[in-house]
Amino acid sequence: MNIGIAGLGLIGGSMAKAVKSRTGHAVFGFDRDPAVLDAALGENACDGILDCGRLRGCDIVLVALWPEDAVRWVAENADSFAPGGIVSDLCGVKGSVCAGVQKAVSNRAFTFIGAHPMAGKERGGFQNADAALFEGASVLLTPFPEADEGQIERLLAFYRSLGFERIVRTTPEEHDRVIAYTSQLAHIVSNAYVKSPTAALHHGFSAGSYRDLTRVARLDEDLWTQLFMENSAPLKAELDGLVERLTAYSEALENGDAETLRLLLREGRTTKERIDAEND
Amino acid sequence: MNIGIAGLGLIGGSMAKAVKSRTGHAVFGFDRDPAVLDAALGENACDGILDCGRLRGCDIVLVALWPEDAVRWVAENADSFAPGGIVSDLCGVKGSVCAGVQKAVSNRAFTFIGAHPMAGKERGGFQNADAALFEGASVLLTPFPEADEGQIERLLAFYRSLGFERIVRTTPEEHDRVIAYTSQLAHIVSNAYVKSPTAALHHGFSAGSYRDLTRVARLDEDLWTQLFMENSAPLKAELDGLVERLTAYSEALENGDAETLRLLLREGRTTKERIDAEND
Repeated sequence: MNIGIAGLGLIGGSMAKAVKSRTGHAVFGFDRDPAVLDAALGENACDGILDCGRLRGCDIVLVALWPEDAVRWVAENADSFAPGGIVSDLCGVKGSVCAGVQKAVSNRAFTFIGAHPMAGKERGGFQNADAALFEGASVLLTPFPEADEGQIERLLAFYRSLGFERIVRTTPEEHDRVIAYTSQLAHIVSNAYVKSPTAALHHGFSAGSYRDLTRVARLDEDLWTQLFMENSAPLKAELDGLVERLTAYSEALENGDAETLRLLLREGRTTKERIDAEND
Repeated sequence: MNIGIAGLGLIGGSMAKAVKSRTGHAVFGFDRDPAVLDAALGENACDGILDCGRLRGCDIVLVALWPEDAVRWVAENADSFAPGGIVSDLCGVKGSVCAGVQKAVSNRAFTFIGAHPMAGKERGGFQNADAALFEGASVLLTPFPEADEGQIERLLAFYRSLGFERIVRTTPEEHDRVIAYTSQLAHIVSNAYVKSPTAALHHGFSAGSYRDLTRVARLDEDLWTQLFMENSAPLKAELDGLVERLTAYSEALENGDAETLRLLLREGRTTKERIDAEND
């Protein structure tokens, strides 16, 4: 097949490298940064440039742009995608993206299927792209209800060929609600955690728990602001829930109430054990 | 040397195994659970039982008990430690422990030196003890001001022989203030994080950031309640600081204020970069 990839950052670049290293497909890529495009061509992560002429020849087009750009790019190119082809965005929010492209892609001869690969790194950009990034990862799919099942199966098989092990079909709404907790809240907590004045003293005083809590504090604030603003209601609900729960521990400490503190900790421990057991 | 170890849980058991696998010293251990003591003897993590007679023959005695038990045990055995020997507790709080033993150990012929090995696992107990647990880790020492420097050096050399790479000398007060942030707060956040009702849906929707945020949620609530209650003022200050910072993100989301959200995220990103650069 011919695979088109718009945007060769960490995710798009890793997709390009995974396709080239794990399949026999040809990759045509584009990035607004000419240096990135040169690097991708130079490293043979792409076989050629994804221009308007190439677009029509692509069986699958991956849109690895930020949400607002992804919506705009799909709409602008809606006339250029191959009849019978598949277009799949890779954004971390799905409600706003799927709603944004819906009008542009309806009644077209190609199939649009939203996707969110659950993999990343603390550092973005093509220079950190990795052919193995998706090995063993999940990918979440949010097809429109009218999407052709055969096309969905084709896209699933393609993602599996890149190393994805688990495919979850969901709705944009459920996706955004769960991701607000599993990914977005984690990034905010990490980003807020590292701001304590005590963090500057951590060296020699810390081990795994500090490292884990602050790992994703280094994020691209422009990208994540866009992701958070497009999912603000579910994210705010999760954030406020966490603040409320944390406040209960603080009150127990304030009151010198060891038994309440113990019960709060016990509730977290048993919750973690139950969830891990359900998922094993 | 002869090394005595009181308490053969994760930390004491790992100390026993590290001594036996990395040095030629003899280990005499004790645990209130006879099955644990049997296991330690059966696996040759201990050469014999640490009883009152043995105690006087130990060059270094490690007290790997919970804080209140550690204070009591050192006081009860203050007449039995070898003249010229070293007694080192391994508790995760140092202010209450060092203050608690101070009267019992002053003007004695042995030297007491508080220590906190910065290593652990999500699961405790001798069954998870590991000779390699301390490889590359830090150990924090909080000697009394009057402690003999030669004895401190002896203890340092001993800890280095177990694989510790970094030794930090500090005061009990500074220790507790920094640990409140680097370890205790992380455990509370993780424990509170996993309680969201959304956590039950995470499977397939999560990757590294969820895993990292919830890793230490599974904690022994009895032990950690004691650790938290004995360090409640610094811990509460850190917890309240985090809640205040998280609330700022929530307000930006509430107000639809993308620019404030971006600045909050930027502040966290630059803080993380600065701290990592200082410590590299």
